[in-house]
Amino acid sequence: MNLRDYVRDIPDYPKEGIVFFDIAPILSTPEAFRYAIDSLAEKFKDSGATKIVAAEARGFIFGAPLAYKMGIGFVPVRKPGKLPYKNRCVTYDLEYGTDTLCIHEDAIEPGEKILVIDDLLATGGTAEGMLKLVKDAGGDIVGCGFVIQLGFLDGDRILEEAGQEHSFLIEIN
Amino acid sequence: MNLRDYVRDIPDYPKEGIVFFDIAPILSTPEAFRYAIDSLAEKFKDSGATKIVAAEARGFIFGAPLAYKMGIGFVPVRKPGKLPYKNRCVTYDLEYGTDTLCIHEDAIEPGEKILVIDDLLATGGTAEGMLKLVKDAGGDIVGCGFVIQLGFLDGDRILEEAGQEHSFLIEIN
Repeated sequence: MNLRDYVRDIPDYPKEGIVFFDIAPILSTPEAFRYAIDSLAEKFKDSGATKIVAAEARGFIFGAPLAYKMGIGFVPVRKPGKLPYKNRCVTYDLEYGTDTLCIHEDAIEPGEKILVIDDLLATGGTAEGMLKLVKDAGGDIVGCGFVIQLGFLDGDRILEEAGQEHSFLIEIN
Repeated sequence: MNLRDYVRDIPDYPKEGIVFFDIAPILSTPEAFRYAIDSLAEKFKDSGATKIVAAEARGFIFGAPLAYKMGIGFVPVRKPGKLPYKNRCVTYDLEYGTDTLCIHEDAIEPGEKILVIDDLLATGGTAEGMLKLVKDAGGDIVGCGFVIQLGFLDGDRILEEAGQEHSFLIEIN
């Protein structure tokens, strides 16, 4: 299956000159969605991960089924003020400004093997924030997986600089 | 398994006097998460549903694995401005004010059998919004499922008035 066929290009979204890659056709096509989750599970089957960390909202759509499929835990990463228990947060730089992501203070045990999952690796800002969050909590990142990698942006370089190998299902150049 | 044991009560969140029911322990415990998804799948196995509709962000955490497990499509419901393709939106009343939810215009075909899933049925506002969204799109709602139902609020009455049967895994009174 060529998963790229199930990604819809939306020109000028969210602003003029940007092409947005819409995953809705993957989600609405059961065979494509199953293929995406099963392919990620296959990539990480020997990782030893006991939890998946994924950021709201699109990251949940792939991270939660992958945790279900792999039989491991799921840790939601959310914006400040969204998680009800004690929060651990990190603020990280974006191209313009900063962003903050949080997990529950007790979500990750020191030394626990963690898989970081997101739908898209673009500039790598969110991924870098998630790595920082997991490392600050003492987690051991055993893999990073994305459905789509935008090859024309610097996300992969940022992960390499962080010493973090990663996998993806579709590369768009 | 008593799934209630994996729901954490957080007093005074999001504001004083309110108890928030935190699903994080379900998610971090693979057996509990699997049990929740498999129980929902069992309830709806004869529904004939071809798609699951669920609202960001917590609804994605249960709706997406359930779609994966059942081998059917997944339709994300999001706040305005979050879905990149043409949107179909509904505005519905809350206790104080209104809220708006959107799906992609082509997400549901007329007559398609739809399952509406969310983590929590409280006052029923979000559920009512999702029902309206699916009906406006011509979808045929064949079931509504929640992980938690708050029995002391009016959510179930709102669904009954809408002629909509529903299922839940945990009732909290």
